[in-house]
Amino acid sequence: MVVSEPVFIGVDIGGTKIAAGVVNAHGKIREKTRAPMLSQASGEEAFAQVRRVVDSIMPDGPRRGPRFYIGVSCPGPLDPRRGVIINPPNLPCWRDFPLAQRISETWSLPAVIDNDANAAALAEAVWGAGAGFSSVFYVTIGTGIGTGLVFDGRIYHGRTGAAGEGGHVSIDYNGPLCGCGKRGCIEALASGPALAARARRRLAEKGESTKIIELAGGNPEAITGQIVGDAYRQGDAVATELLAETADYLAIWLGNVIDMIEPDVVIFGGGMGELLSGWFDRIREKLPAWSINSRCKEIPIVRARYHEDSGIAGGAAVCLHEEMNDR
Amino acid sequence: MVVSEPVFIGVDIGGTKIAAGVVNAHGKIREKTRAPMLSQASGEEAFAQVRRVVDSIMPDGPRRGPRFYIGVSCPGPLDPRRGVIINPPNLPCWRDFPLAQRISETWSLPAVIDNDANAAALAEAVWGAGAGFSSVFYVTIGTGIGTGLVFDGRIYHGRTGAAGEGGHVSIDYNGPLCGCGKRGCIEALASGPALAARARRRLAEKGESTKIIELAGGNPEAITGQIVGDAYRQGDAVATELLAETADYLAIWLGNVIDMIEPDVVIFGGGMGELLSGWFDRIREKLPAWSINSRCKEIPIVRARYHEDSGIAGGAAVCLHEEMNDR
Repeated sequence: MVVSEPVFIGVDIGGTKIAAGVVNAHGKIREKTRAPMLSQASGEEAFAQVRRVVDSIMPDGPRRGPRFYIGVSCPGPLDPRRGVIINPPNLPCWRDFPLAQRISETWSLPAVIDNDANAAALAEAVWGAGAGFSSVFYVTIGTGIGTGLVFDGRIYHGRTGAAGEGGHVSIDYNGPLCGCGKRGCIEALASGPALAARARRRLAEKGESTKIIELAGGNPEAITGQIVGDAYRQGDAVATELLAETADYLAIWLGNVIDMIEPDVVIFGGGMGELLSGWFDRIREKLPAWSINSRCKEIPIVRARYHEDSGIAGGAAVCLHEEMNDR
Repeated sequence: MVVSEPVFIGVDIGGTKIAAGVVNAHGKIREKTRAPMLSQASGEEAFAQVRRVVDSIMPDGPRRGPRFYIGVSCPGPLDPRRGVIINPPNLPCWRDFPLAQRISETWSLPAVIDNDANAAALAEAVWGAGAGFSSVFYVTIGTGIGTGLVFDGRIYHGRTGAAGEGGHVSIDYNGPLCGCGKRGCIEALASGPALAARARRRLAEKGESTKIIELAGGNPEAITGQIVGDAYRQGDAVATELLAETADYLAIWLGNVIDMIEPDVVIFGGGMGELLSGWFDRIREKLPAWSINSRCKEIPIVRARYHEDSGIAGGAAVCLHEEMNDR
């Protein structure tokens, strides 16, 4: 008897795009597609767009096999247990929208949803850089900082599904104001926009000569984290110092995370993940000053396996929770 | 057929005392005893003292029943998995001492050890203020701040058993130096000694009239957290402000914990637990400014059930891990 492997449709819904892919039981993305997301449209129009995208890669019923699931990665707040999108700022189309149920009804398949950082964390934990580790701390760093905790192959959700928001752990309650309203969140210190803001402040204060302002066309307002990264790759001294500062903030923050959670592995993904990978050694060197864990330096700090496909892989991975319950 | 309930000997080893008790399957302490701990003696002398204390309450073999366990709560660092005391500053008698194995051999019983905050957290989670909750965050606040995380009735240990050190989560990397070497740990801001230090600093700066200095016999060096607490209970305005400040630090810190872990309940124990219980409402009011969790105020903040017996109950509770594995 041949036991069929499960197959997952992973759907990545963002503020501006939808991507979807067919993912096998080993996390391999076999085919994928993408389209704009109609996040400013009505809830029904937005859902119709999701439907079109998913239909374009969905095998017809007879070809689906018995273990077929749909999982969605999308921005929160959302309720993963009830499968309801609550009120994400980036998805004004949906307020208290029962996305999992609507998907499940549309294709007559089991459907699950989770927030993007949690979903990507699970994909890394089971199929990516965290495979083989029991507790995984995943960080996606880009325009914001999202995190996800996976213990023994399951996303740690907390009381209402809102756990794992490590990007808003404050390391400086007098520090810069974060978009969330708290001060000194690591997101307000080490994300792309925070890096750009520190660059602008430094230029205004010191007026040094740096490639950063050149790459920004002379306009400080045009500086982005990306531009600081480009200047760093070209050997710019100011950009290098700004990135070293970012690494130092991340070490302070990871020290807190390790003292609380002591994960088996720390994984960095997201738009700035690659840029930061050159700084993992520095972060590791600084960790002992910011963790009471005498073995903190042993914890691997690694890059994510999934990059632009982290949402598709993440959506597929959250199906695993459902699949485990079905077995 | 009558199925016998398990019975636990809970042993609480500290730097200056040993306590031990017989604890039933519902966390009730049936008899207990205490004696000085010989923490400055040799490892063997110290163990002989543990042996005397435990022997004084240990039923003889035939009366032990088939489900009988010994569990120890003691200061870390220790390795709960191997049952080895590593190098606790408060227990210089033991360095890499295989305490669980020695206990197990001495009484021919299953033996387990865990650090005091973890053990007390588990006792609260299964038998105390956390009973019925799935994820429990326990805080013991006194001369230091220790924490423990319990998920689904099991202590969360992390990679090497060093997780749950929430007292060393820093909320101010420029803040006061902590005994651990980090800056701005909540222990350095809100523990008893930190409260006393803030009182001393404030008196030196402002020279206000306050009961604190009166209760300290006019000697600022004699101020303790206990004295500030006593002054507060007598209505002293400065002490009240110092405690409000403590509550505010705790709110910032708990905001971080909730954003990461979103526990079902937060439990305060330890010497300052009672003093702080009058401030739980203020902490809860301040939480929304320091957590991005829109439902953070719903999380109960409560006092521990176990007080001076938290080590005995904790030692007994860690037997539950062993007992679950045996079933």
